[in-house]
Amino acid sequence: MNEEMALIVQKFGGTSMANTERIENVARTVAATKQAGNKVAVVVSAMAGQTDYLLDLSSSISVNPPLREQDALVSTGEQVAAALLAITLAKMGHKSQSYTGMQLPMVTDDIHSKARILDLKTDRLQKVLDEGIIPVIAGFQGVNSEGDITTLGRGGSDTTAVAIAAALKADCCEIYTDVDGVYTTDPNICPQARHLKQISYSEMLELAGLGAKVLQTRSVELAQKYRVPLVVKSSFGSNKHTWIVKKEDVMENSIIKGVTLERNVSKIVVIRVPDRPGIAYRILAPLADLAINVDMIIQNASIDGHTDFTFTVPRTELTRAKALVQKVADDIGAQEVMTANGIVKVSAVGIGIKTNFGVAARMFKALADENINVQMISTSEYRISAVIDEKYGELAVRTLHQAFELEKNGNGGLRESLMPKHPDAAKPGSSDETDSGAGI
Amino acid sequence: MNEEMALIVQKFGGTSMANTERIENVARTVAATKQAGNKVAVVVSAMAGQTDYLLDLSSSISVNPPLREQDALVSTGEQVAAALLAITLAKMGHKSQSYTGMQLPMVTDDIHSKARILDLKTDRLQKVLDEGIIPVIAGFQGVNSEGDITTLGRGGSDTTAVAIAAALKADCCEIYTDVDGVYTTDPNICPQARHLKQISYSEMLELAGLGAKVLQTRSVELAQKYRVPLVVKSSFGSNKHTWIVKKEDVMENSIIKGVTLERNVSKIVVIRVPDRPGIAYRILAPLADLAINVDMIIQNASIDGHTDFTFTVPRTELTRAKALVQKVADDIGAQEVMTANGIVKVSAVGIGIKTNFGVAARMFKALADENINVQMISTSEYRISAVIDEKYGELAVRTLHQAFELEKNGNGGLRESLMPKHPDAAKPGSSDETDSGAGI
Repeated sequence: MNEEMALIVQKFGGTSMANTERIENVARTVAATKQAGNKVAVVVSAMAGQTDYLLDLSSSISVNPPLREQDALVSTGEQVAAALLAITLAKMGHKSQSYTGMQLPMVTDDIHSKARILDLKTDRLQKVLDEGIIPVIAGFQGVNSEGDITTLGRGGSDTTAVAIAAALKADCCEIYTDVDGVYTTDPNICPQARHLKQISYSEMLELAGLGAKVLQTRSVELAQKYRVPLVVKSSFGSNKHTWIVKKEDVMENSIIKGVTLERNVSKIVVIRVPDRPGIAYRILAPLADLAINVDMIIQNASIDGHTDFTFTVPRTELTRAKALVQKVADDIGAQEVMTANGIVKVSAVGIGIKTNFGVAARMFKALADENINVQMISTSEYRISAVIDEKYGELAVRTLHQAFELEKNGNGGLRESLMPKHPDAAKPGSSDETDSGAGI
Repeated sequence: MNEEMALIVQKFGGTSMANTERIENVARTVAATKQAGNKVAVVVSAMAGQTDYLLDLSSSISVNPPLREQDALVSTGEQVAAALLAITLAKMGHKSQSYTGMQLPMVTDDIHSKARILDLKTDRLQKVLDEGIIPVIAGFQGVNSEGDITTLGRGGSDTTAVAIAAALKADCCEIYTDVDGVYTTDPNICPQARHLKQISYSEMLELAGLGAKVLQTRSVELAQKYRVPLVVKSSFGSNKHTWIVKKEDVMENSIIKGVTLERNVSKIVVIRVPDRPGIAYRILAPLADLAINVDMIIQNASIDGHTDFTFTVPRTELTRAKALVQKVADDIGAQEVMTANGIVKVSAVGIGIKTNFGVAARMFKALADENINVQMISTSEYRISAVIDEKYGELAVRTLHQAFELEKNGNGGLRESLMPKHPDAAKPGSSDETDSGAGI
């Protein structure tokens, strides 16, 4: 423990701020952290439902509202929540002031509705914190160089919180939400799902990107970049929580951390594409131009100068993507474009995957034992994914959870005891103490 | 008519902005003004009910919320309305951008919830207007020198509109509301009430201050100071409107412009006050300290070293005021403090009052003819007021309306034909054309 006061950034999501009673609960959490001798800066989301209400108002007027105006509109949700929390803290006898993104300022680029943070001035926040005032910052929003209000995209308040923690060099960033952390898989699918006390940034990124909707992906990337220890806690009474820290600080070095299921998947197959250089580019470029996210890509070995080209897109984008691809297929003389909707993606995620070649074999054996046919495969440093028939999705999750013994702490026989330790791992530092349960 | 494009500031109140359909109506009004060849800047209030909703949220948390936070909270109402109107204008094919008070910036003093405007930067507005964009400005709000959000008090959007019109040197400021202008009295009380085409700033100030709730008093003061021609119009289809202009530009120079009734009045009488210098100050100073507005004050002639001291306060303040006055009365040895609630104030307002001594006589004769007893009298340059028993309030209004022949254009026999003309009156100027119905 430091002699100095610790600085903690606390972020509360929309369900935590849903009404004035819950805001009182939030205020009690903040006040307790302050009274324990810490400096506290708070980031809030809009009250649950408020952002959707404002977006509905906007879309009831126009299907294509100017995003500058939509940002000005929806950013009010967080401003309201921040002011209400500051009022509640004041009632409890704590000096508090709300701040909008413009007031800090949180400077972003010009991309309305999904702006990226460029710079964050901390002068005013530092001054306020030094005066013993609790700043309550409206998440999700910033201001561009023109002085226009911007927003950071859905879940952007997580990113606001991490950015503020990074800029203030906070000891940690606590994310309060309606779950009590990260699990080995969705407990609704697999009752054996186990709560994780720790996970590395990289593992969390793979989990978050695959639908474990605990944190906005960008917030984890930012935390990783600036080495901000993150902890996910429940606003609703659970004592469990999950630390998201750098790889070297993860105590429990199991190879596989979790299994995820992504349902929003469609497949596009371009059949008998003439196998010439640049074909993949020609097929995928029009999709990229419209920001349609292409995920798994497979190109089969060429037979008599032709190949089949397969990839997945979000199910909501299938119609648009199909039309674009059909046009290219006609141009390049492909035989046919087929699509399939009834598929899902199941993934095993873990830091040990790249150094443990047995993981893939164990995964596909387990699926085969249940007669689950694998249609597509992709791998990354921390992830192996398989596309399978939708009807086997939940069975596959339970099967893999059991195969990797995720219900056991440390994965039984898959304990990663032979992995080389990172040289920094033994270095003392605040983030090594992060799972002590104390406020650092 | 100028060769140059005219610049018109249009302000729309909460009932005009109550839902997306009404916002479409507002957008059509704005678009028509633009298409007629004018530059237009728009100021909006929050959607009807929104400010009260936000204040209720705040007061459900705390009876005494920090006003800095309350301002941050309620200012979102206008921000939402401004963004929605800009989105609606964009849908109709008009370039439009919303602006908060902070974005302009509209710089105010530090008095949260009733801030006063200190400075208004017009660089950005001018640039936007020159580019053919319609700026939609969130009314009611500003920012202090610290960068904190402030609000201008109830009805403050009127003041925002006039301030913007003054700073931009606009040709006029149009206030769209749920009434179609100013009447000689409340038509609900007196069916003979006549719509006024023109009224001077001074007359409007006396009418507004007395409960003709068409415009925030400060907006009229500001319009008077900067000679901004104001026009009150209906958002709901009426073609009538009332111009509020400088005295010299009022064509119809009737002595009495209107009769008003103020119901929210209570009387405090301090009986047998020792008649020493400074007594009035000692009684009234504690009320001023708590910002209790003391209106009519009467001190009777002294009899054997004692006097009765009478004044009126808003009825909502009577309990607080009585307690303060009782304490002083005990200190100075007054005999008793009495209060009365069942009273109202009826006033005749008009530019000709100060030069027409017969007005008071005619007023009191008319009241006496109806056996209405006058309890207190006060006069100002443009107003004569009488406190009477509450039950005669409406009868008094109808009686005075008839006595001054207000149902007739020009007040019949009270036409002010002998009043000296102001030397500026004949000077040509845009505001002389204000009642032409054209957009100046």
